[in-house]
Amino acid sequence: MRAVVCQDARLEVVDLPEPVPGPGQLLVEVRRCGICGSDLHARHHCDELAGVMDELGYDGMMRRSQAVVLGHEFCGEVVDRGPRTKGGPADGDLVVALPLLRGADGAVHPTGLSAAAAGGYAERLLVQAACAITVPNGLPPEVATLTEPLAVAWHAVRRGEVGKRQVAIVIGCGPVGLAVILLLKAQGVRRVVAADLSPGRRALAQRCGADVVVDPATASPYAAFPDAGHLTTAPDVLELAVGTQEKLVGAPIPTWGTWRAIDRLGIRPKAPVVFECVGVPGMIDAVVAGAPIWSRVVVVGVCMGEDRLRPTMAINKEVELRFVLGYTPLEFRDALHLLAEGRVDPSPLVTGTVGLDGVGTAFEALGDPETHAKILVDPRSAATAP
Amino acid sequence: MRAVVCQDARLEVVDLPEPVPGPGQLLVEVRRCGICGSDLHARHHCDELAGVMDELGYDGMMRRSQAVVLGHEFCGEVVDRGPRTKGGPADGDLVVALPLLRGADGAVHPTGLSAAAAGGYAERLLVQAACAITVPNGLPPEVATLTEPLAVAWHAVRRGEVGKRQVAIVIGCGPVGLAVILLLKAQGVRRVVAADLSPGRRALAQRCGADVVVDPATASPYAAFPDAGHLTTAPDVLELAVGTQEKLVGAPIPTWGTWRAIDRLGIRPKAPVVFECVGVPGMIDAVVAGAPIWSRVVVVGVCMGEDRLRPTMAINKEVELRFVLGYTPLEFRDALHLLAEGRVDPSPLVTGTVGLDGVGTAFEALGDPETHAKILVDPRSAATAP
Repeated sequence: MRAVVCQDARLEVVDLPEPVPGPGQLLVEVRRCGICGSDLHARHHCDELAGVMDELGYDGMMRRSQAVVLGHEFCGEVVDRGPRTKGGPADGDLVVALPLLRGADGAVHPTGLSAAAAGGYAERLLVQAACAITVPNGLPPEVATLTEPLAVAWHAVRRGEVGKRQVAIVIGCGPVGLAVILLLKAQGVRRVVAADLSPGRRALAQRCGADVVVDPATASPYAAFPDAGHLTTAPDVLELAVGTQEKLVGAPIPTWGTWRAIDRLGIRPKAPVVFECVGVPGMIDAVVAGAPIWSRVVVVGVCMGEDRLRPTMAINKEVELRFVLGYTPLEFRDALHLLAEGRVDPSPLVTGTVGLDGVGTAFEALGDPETHAKILVDPRSAATAP
Repeated sequence: MRAVVCQDARLEVVDLPEPVPGPGQLLVEVRRCGICGSDLHARHHCDELAGVMDELGYDGMMRRSQAVVLGHEFCGEVVDRGPRTKGGPADGDLVVALPLLRGADGAVHPTGLSAAAAGGYAERLLVQAACAITVPNGLPPEVATLTEPLAVAWHAVRRGEVGKRQVAIVIGCGPVGLAVILLLKAQGVRRVVAADLSPGRRALAQRCGADVVVDPATASPYAAFPDAGHLTTAPDVLELAVGTQEKLVGAPIPTWGTWRAIDRLGIRPKAPVVFECVGVPGMIDAVVAGAPIWSRVVVVGVCMGEDRLRPTMAINKEVELRFVLGYTPLEFRDALHLLAEGRVDPSPLVTGTVGLDGVGTAFEALGDPETHAKILVDPRSAATAP
């Protein structure tokens, strides 16, 4: 079968042997596969990520010198199944699946990011029957294939625990940032601020439902809703501590209930939740320096290598950093259902489609934020440019 | 009156004019004042902290070149009050107070860390009546004066949200780390691990109630309770995701309830809460690299300057970093009550007492973790060495 192989940062269409499903596995004919930012990263910098995962006890992540078929945001049709593979989707079903494959060695590997589990930039690939879900409601493959990136964003939004009255600030409007905006709005968050240096990306953020869209080169995303950070500075906090006590003097020292009431009235609940969706060095520190006191920062962007952080700034703001990765199987299923039930309209995300021969061109095109966000691969298409 | 003045990193006993209480203020005769790690920091590196606070909108933190009376962990007797100062503690009361003073400029300043608000290394100091609490139960000043550092630890423990069955790991057994251990045990946390390179500090941790005490040079504090991190590595997580689904295949995709049950059974709730109480460069990254997946890290230690962090490691472990600072007025009051009701015994923390003439020697002595943890200043004592 035809597949795009990545090796030493080169992308090449080659002929590979037909994959043979083992017990518990399905053979899936790929209908669409999205190109993810982590694929762009992995092409050049996978050794760094492989090193971190190795330190964590997993040595199966792709290395630069290995021949790997990328692609983990896939959707396809079940065409065959391995021996003793009962249950799960039926032959002919359109499915999406968690990109995790039990390899020949018995261990589980990430599909499309490991030499042991070939991905979706190919005519066919293997998935675990246990990890596959039949696409409901006649959802077309070009929408269903967005289940995976939406699951990433859904996990981030859930970890953000944003209240409907809280302000959410999304820094970076790449595909993940855009998906975060879609899901925050689907969740009913009333005030979503989006920031991106690119006018094209800002236009997409608007289409995804952001209430305020900001060019961070000219305005602060943290000031879009001033009441979200009315306690932004250290003197505010000092004044609060003494001023509150002064109001209560003569009365006994306030009880837990009093302080909780003060809390509810105006402080912590109003601090915004910031989603860092850029993932370049210095971004985490810049967000901490810019965000109001008591902000929660969900770190969704993946910054490779070593980064700098000023702990005193984070400490003086009592910032909370929540690093997130992936999703649970249930969040993956939820993402599919959010799409199938029409609760999110992901059309602004997809900006092009190519065939296998166009994958290299698509990777280059994704370097320019003005023209593209998410490009899909359709192995049956002959398009060589998005 | 006699006071210790810090200027250009020199500590000197000088004669200062008597402080005169303004409206809403009390004059307090100091009985004890603890020496805090942040005083040692401030003596040499206050300009750095002042710069961060300036960026946050507060320009009143002490500068190296200013003459400042340090000391914010004080306890003393009310001897006078300003005009129109009603309510609050009575004359003759032994009090502790939030170290915050409304200065002549009308703004609130941190007592003992600002040139505008002289601290407790002195015979007398000013406090806001609204921020002072009468010490109950005949608690002696040498215990009551620990209210402030205990409030810092109490705030950190509350922000840690440690369940009684969760494992708490305290990295660094200086006064704050020791106070965190005391309060975790007072909270009923059953498994508290303490780690410090110094045998002397480890002995104090044991006296504070730590269940396991570890020398991090020879053993991992994260492995003291293996079940706390039974899902420590990336392959464990991959296996969980696929293995769980495999068990359920044939059955419909699990419901929210099923996944929540899996959660409850064995994963997130078991991840430990780590208290980073060292505050030197590289510690946050080392804790992230060492702690099990899904750990919550409460950053209590104050690391000055720029620090390094590998976001990919934090992301792959989905670590949460909670930076904490200070306490609320209510937490301060709680800390006093925890002491007054005998719910914590802080005796292991205090390792010496000096008079004003001994403050310089005490600062030097605190450089050696083997011999000292917390040294108190008693302005009426003639002791020149702890």
